[in-house]
Amino acid sequence: MNSRRFVLASAVIAASIAAARAQTPSTGAEAIVRSPSFVAASDFLARDYDRFVRELITLTEIPAPPFKETARGAAFLQMLRASGLADVETDAEGNVMGVRRGSASALRATADQPMLAVLAHLDTVFPEGTDVHVKRDGTRLRAPGVGDDTRGLALMLTMIRAMDAAHVQTPLDILFVGNVGEEGEGDLRGAKYLLLKGKYKDRIKSFISIDGGDQGSITNGALGSKRYRVTFKGPGGHSYGAFGIVNPAFAMGEAIAKFSHLTVPANPKTTFNVGVVNGGTSVNSIPTEVSMDVDMRSESPDALNKLVADFQAVVRDAVAQENAARSTKEGKVEADVKLIGDRPSGETPVNSLIVRSTTAVVKSFGLTPRYGISSTDSNIPISLGIPAITIGRGPSERSHSLDEWTDVEKSSAVKAAQVALAIVFAAAH
Amino acid sequence: MNSRRFVLASAVIAASIAAARAQTPSTGAEAIVRSPSFVAASDFLARDYDRFVRELITLTEIPAPPFKETARGAAFLQMLRASGLADVETDAEGNVMGVRRGSASALRATADQPMLAVLAHLDTVFPEGTDVHVKRDGTRLRAPGVGDDTRGLALMLTMIRAMDAAHVQTPLDILFVGNVGEEGEGDLRGAKYLLLKGKYKDRIKSFISIDGGDQGSITNGALGSKRYRVTFKGPGGHSYGAFGIVNPAFAMGEAIAKFSHLTVPANPKTTFNVGVVNGGTSVNSIPTEVSMDVDMRSESPDALNKLVADFQAVVRDAVAQENAARSTKEGKVEADVKLIGDRPSGETPVNSLIVRSTTAVVKSFGLTPRYGISSTDSNIPISLGIPAITIGRGPSERSHSLDEWTDVEKSSAVKAAQVALAIVFAAAH
Repeated sequence: MNSRRFVLASAVIAASIAAARAQTPSTGAEAIVRSPSFVAASDFLARDYDRFVRELITLTEIPAPPFKETARGAAFLQMLRASGLADVETDAEGNVMGVRRGSASALRATADQPMLAVLAHLDTVFPEGTDVHVKRDGTRLRAPGVGDDTRGLALMLTMIRAMDAAHVQTPLDILFVGNVGEEGEGDLRGAKYLLLKGKYKDRIKSFISIDGGDQGSITNGALGSKRYRVTFKGPGGHSYGAFGIVNPAFAMGEAIAKFSHLTVPANPKTTFNVGVVNGGTSVNSIPTEVSMDVDMRSESPDALNKLVADFQAVVRDAVAQENAARSTKEGKVEADVKLIGDRPSGETPVNSLIVRSTTAVVKSFGLTPRYGISSTDSNIPISLGIPAITIGRGPSERSHSLDEWTDVEKSSAVKAAQVALAIVFAAAH
Repeated sequence: MNSRRFVLASAVIAASIAAARAQTPSTGAEAIVRSPSFVAASDFLARDYDRFVRELITLTEIPAPPFKETARGAAFLQMLRASGLADVETDAEGNVMGVRRGSASALRATADQPMLAVLAHLDTVFPEGTDVHVKRDGTRLRAPGVGDDTRGLALMLTMIRAMDAAHVQTPLDILFVGNVGEEGEGDLRGAKYLLLKGKYKDRIKSFISIDGGDQGSITNGALGSKRYRVTFKGPGGHSYGAFGIVNPAFAMGEAIAKFSHLTVPANPKTTFNVGVVNGGTSVNSIPTEVSMDVDMRSESPDALNKLVADFQAVVRDAVAQENAARSTKEGKVEADVKLIGDRPSGETPVNSLIVRSTTAVVKSFGLTPRYGISSTDSNIPISLGIPAITIGRGPSERSHSLDEWTDVEKSSAVKAAQVALAIVFAAAH
């Protein structure tokens, strides 16, 4: 993900983390940031900067299309091991993960311990064959996927090394995950597996996804989305000999045109997209089948439902129009509308522990916290009632486009890593 | 091909072939059909029927997508050899061919001899992965490509065997070709190579393509066509984060819708098609690029030119409309309109030798000759001034659709083969 809306916090959140956490030996955000072990870890991040950049480039240049994250996952698995994490493994869905033991695990049976999950996703939106070679442009690195979410993966690695180097102790176990299936048709399959089927599913009690932009942004809202693949089918035939019969490509064109004319509210933000079109066998054949992939999102479930209804009407109208415009003697055009993505909406309350501790950390770095809503892996824990937020990985722009870039200017990159580390450190108390 | 328009011959063509061919030992069509060697060859066709059907099925079940005819070509090469043809080879373009020596070659240097080329095309319109398994349904064989033009290939093989079995002697050498690239983007590359670059290019003085339906039809007109790939490009971006910027898929949808609303004359027959659509990387990305393949044809060059101009205006308007409807702050949508097929139109005159001899043969079988115009490999020789026609392979329907079928009822199949053999036999005089 790279997209969300943020509003300035309407209420000042000033309560200390310690006061809210009776059962854990937490200190406040200020105390965390000033603690000797955090300072040591923080210093390490600056020394580890070159390696962070190197690993970011290495990982970016391993293609990871949706459902084809294996090669990048294998490389990430080695990097997790090399960064000092134990219990490193790949689960049945393809998530690559390892556990950093907290102090509580040493006292009680591990199976009972609550766990903080920290995720960055392995997959990018880009298909096989995309040129993923990284180009440098001053302090900017340019490549498809370099920001979303490869920078999140590289940030996770440097954080783990920093905690290891500074012998940071957290009360909670932390599960670090490079997960599959965040983008598009992946439909959050990695996060779903982790929380619904994986070996740690009953232990994960809080959740942080590193998959946003700058570090003032705290995504605590899950943006709902509905995704459809619409397949227009018809009898097909020779472009000249059978001319005059219905053409599924014409019906789809009509549907796209009508869809593009829909108006949606700016607030609550509501969006729609035709992301992929595909179909037909040859220039001189009337297609038997063409399809389009459609994405619709809204901050408001009601606005989303209205948009989905409008979209379905558009498809019906376009099909009826084509069947009326041309001959159906060989058969009609029909549309098969299939739901291919359904991301639940929801919210981790602003007064929840994880949002409050993150807010305090962000402020302690002199940043202004902004709360946002987006569609990320956090949608899944939020829908399950598990407190979850999505935080920044550092500045990147033009995500999902071929000219995506991320800025790795050293001082800001190190600061972004320090804020993320402090957020994770605080949340693991 | 499978599509053409036929008109009943307005003039009765009664001249004997012999009278028109002072320099060859030709007899009239009636005489050809009654000659002992033709009768023997004709009888052989009935005995060879089972093998014809078997080879038709075998060849149909070897996929031959455009530009991927190699496997089928290799099998056809073996079959040409097994059917008694000499000098069998594959040329640099992929055409599979062999020569059947005529009596004139025995008297003079071969290099000087005029030659009749007889073609059927190897390629089908169907892409890799299409199920090409042949299903029987009474006397019908159902499979993609079974008619167009695999039946032409199988017919050619049985004809060669019949000529061989009956020791038929023709004055002219006959070049039998299973050629590549007739369909779609192949853009007649096989016929072009044969006539412009191949080793026999200066010897081919007449040309028959076996690529039509029933045997009363004589395609002597070359239907002109123009084909374009239109690529709509834009900045792309995240479907939610970048919502509001221009979307190339919306521009293409608008163009397809407007294109589908165009009206074209029924006479001269003028047609248009969107045959393939493609593009985009993921459902949640605004595409950077989508494309469509467009086919336009007309019996009239003027009507074709008008349609092409209308089509280009439609693309321009759709692009302008999208750039006006949404933000261009990240860049505009642009359309790249590329010509991918340009088939010349033209005609082999009805009073040409090859049309007259074919007409006489068709009549001698009690059929009513009809002259037609179509887009086939004959477009190329016609554009070069080489007399050329396209003749039938036997009844088939639903070409270019997945439910294509051809009828192989024995008596009609054998008769279709006899007519084709007589046409070739007469044209080789």
